[in-house]
Amino acid sequence: VSWTCPGFLFAGAAAGIKKKGGLDVGLIAAEAPASCAAVFTRNRVRAAPVRLSRRHLGAAQGQIRGIVVNSGNANACTGPGGARDALRMAELAAKAIGAAPGEVLVSSTGVIGQRLPMDRVVAGIHTAGVSLYDAGFAAFSEAIMTTDRRPKVASHPLTLGGRTITLLGCTKGAGMIAPNMATTLTFVVTDAAIDPSRLDPAVRHAVAGTYNAMTVDGDQSTNDMLAVMASGVAGPLDDAAHARFGAALTDLLADLAHQLMSDGEGVHHVVTIAVRGATSEAAARSVARRVATSPLVKTAIAGADPNWGRILCAIGNAGVKIDARRIEVAFDDVPIVARSTAVPDLDDARAAAVMQRPAYTITIDLHQGEHRGQYLACDLSHEYVSINADYRS
Amino acid sequence: VSWTCPGFLFAGAAAGIKKKGGLDVGLIAAEAPASCAAVFTRNRVRAAPVRLSRRHLGAAQGQIRGIVVNSGNANACTGPGGARDALRMAELAAKAIGAAPGEVLVSSTGVIGQRLPMDRVVAGIHTAGVSLYDAGFAAFSEAIMTTDRRPKVASHPLTLGGRTITLLGCTKGAGMIAPNMATTLTFVVTDAAIDPSRLDPAVRHAVAGTYNAMTVDGDQSTNDMLAVMASGVAGPLDDAAHARFGAALTDLLADLAHQLMSDGEGVHHVVTIAVRGATSEAAARSVARRVATSPLVKTAIAGADPNWGRILCAIGNAGVKIDARRIEVAFDDVPIVARSTAVPDLDDARAAAVMQRPAYTITIDLHQGEHRGQYLACDLSHEYVSINADYRS
Repeated sequence: VSWTCPGFLFAGAAAGIKKKGGLDVGLIAAEAPASCAAVFTRNRVRAAPVRLSRRHLGAAQGQIRGIVVNSGNANACTGPGGARDALRMAELAAKAIGAAPGEVLVSSTGVIGQRLPMDRVVAGIHTAGVSLYDAGFAAFSEAIMTTDRRPKVASHPLTLGGRTITLLGCTKGAGMIAPNMATTLTFVVTDAAIDPSRLDPAVRHAVAGTYNAMTVDGDQSTNDMLAVMASGVAGPLDDAAHARFGAALTDLLADLAHQLMSDGEGVHHVVTIAVRGATSEAAARSVARRVATSPLVKTAIAGADPNWGRILCAIGNAGVKIDARRIEVAFDDVPIVARSTAVPDLDDARAAAVMQRPAYTITIDLHQGEHRGQYLACDLSHEYVSINADYRS
Repeated sequence: VSWTCPGFLFAGAAAGIKKKGGLDVGLIAAEAPASCAAVFTRNRVRAAPVRLSRRHLGAAQGQIRGIVVNSGNANACTGPGGARDALRMAELAAKAIGAAPGEVLVSSTGVIGQRLPMDRVVAGIHTAGVSLYDAGFAAFSEAIMTTDRRPKVASHPLTLGGRTITLLGCTKGAGMIAPNMATTLTFVVTDAAIDPSRLDPAVRHAVAGTYNAMTVDGDQSTNDMLAVMASGVAGPLDDAAHARFGAALTDLLADLAHQLMSDGEGVHHVVTIAVRGATSEAAARSVARRVATSPLVKTAIAGADPNWGRILCAIGNAGVKIDARRIEVAFDDVPIVARSTAVPDLDDARAAAVMQRPAYTITIDLHQGEHRGQYLACDLSHEYVSINADYRS
């Protein structure tokens, strides 16, 4: 697997923004205007770079030339000065890649409420600009990290009628690993040729089942952003190829999302909450989300305690109309609950053994309909509290 | 303050339902049919006693004779057999106090998914029946406890035109102290004469600002119940007295709710999240609730870390339309945030000192309207994880 994508150059630079050092300015440059679709945090308190990127993406009608990212400082809750800093980052990056500022998106992650050290940012963007090259994706993926323990990169090439289409992505963050905020950033590049008008729904569909169906601690950050750029170098897709591209994008994001959860400090178990038998997909997802976010369920996962009453309690709290007498629960292949009470021969030891696994599935059947939905969940552990309570002490 | 209420008898008995021993069957008997209003869990998975009590209260048109409670076993997720057990408890209690089974409410708290040890329950209700006396409220308040460290009782007498009206209540539970479920039970008796049709709205109004405006970990149990009984012995209230009664009931419930939060194992700080300047009371309460339930805010409270960015992030996630540039935050009398960024002379040491207090207020001004709302919150501590993750290991 090669970490390159025709039509794109990448770079990472160490600018001294992160206290602990390391790469902290990343740059993606498209050699020509590329289709771009992105989703941003739905938090009403949005960082300056998020507000700027939404504006630029809209004004450029989804045709952009580059993305500049810094880690170590989120440029959030920084007032009008912060907005000027974000614009200046776009201007500097545009100059470095020979584009207009309006063709550049900006993304930041790190501490909140502090102005960016702009002297360092200026130097960092300059260094990144002169370091751009086709194999720079590894450096870029490192430059976006905050407390991540390792870069999270995935490449899912797709063969379509003899042609190979590249899909290359990286991600960072998650609540559990970002003490000062739960920022999640994800960037994907492809050489497929897709109009922004077709790329946008494909991205939204892929996000719905992956990044929007996982939870570490339920908070959306002020800075969350996921962007996909398509250079078009590999040529256009026909309708069948479009569908396969969408599926491949979903797979790529699912891969990155799972890496994201697994890398959380304090995360020992990544658990898929799979709900079926619901009256609608939305109902299934609501139930999955409620179970995935319940602190009582999450501490039971941490303790590998097959405490199924907490799962039923969370299901009942989902705000979804359910038949409370028909719920079925299994941990991987071990039946736990049938008709809303413990199965007659419940094997506590086998159930606890499943819960020792680093990844497993809790399947919930509501027996009310044909629809399914799922969420990725994780444990709520002592490390989570330590990381988040003792951060500044 | 006397722990009696004219028209009522109380008892607690040790029946051996709780593994650790102690009183575990409680009984309240009204000497004549008493007005009753109650609120029950909104969880769709309801324990058998909750289903039975709702049915009895409705069929009796708010006129009941008694309440029987057991701790140590929630009789939840126990199938049709559990429903029969709950009905049998009502029948036994009715016999003990000389009433019809339909005039008795039943309440249970404790482990989920196990059938009640009915032989012990039968003996316990019998013992409680013969132990009923006017000063038995202390025993009753102990009999409803699970992992509570102490009984939580409050008496708020009210003087109206020379008469003294008694308001006496007790409460148990909260997520943080109930490892196997977050059951909250609350029982209040008064000698005021109030029709069920007037008692019901008074109870709902009092609950909205107290028990429905606090959160330990966001889960509603399968067994939550709050009931108020009025014997009428002290005579009827005129319209002005009704209003004062409602206010006194709210004060009593606020007192009990605060005791409940403070008694949580792992709770070191009870924090009032007071939101003002909202466009509606509902919006104010949504913002307060979101801040109160955010794990990132709760761990910051645990660590006494004045990490205001997490508060702004939670406000933005409340699903309420806000002007993200005008938010103001203070910890007690220490200003923290103005115009959505740190105040220029932010005193981190003074802010941290407030956060060392066992009880303090985080005031959030949205500067958008005239409405207010608040929530009681607490910290998310290592003890919480220990209690809930290591419960059965």
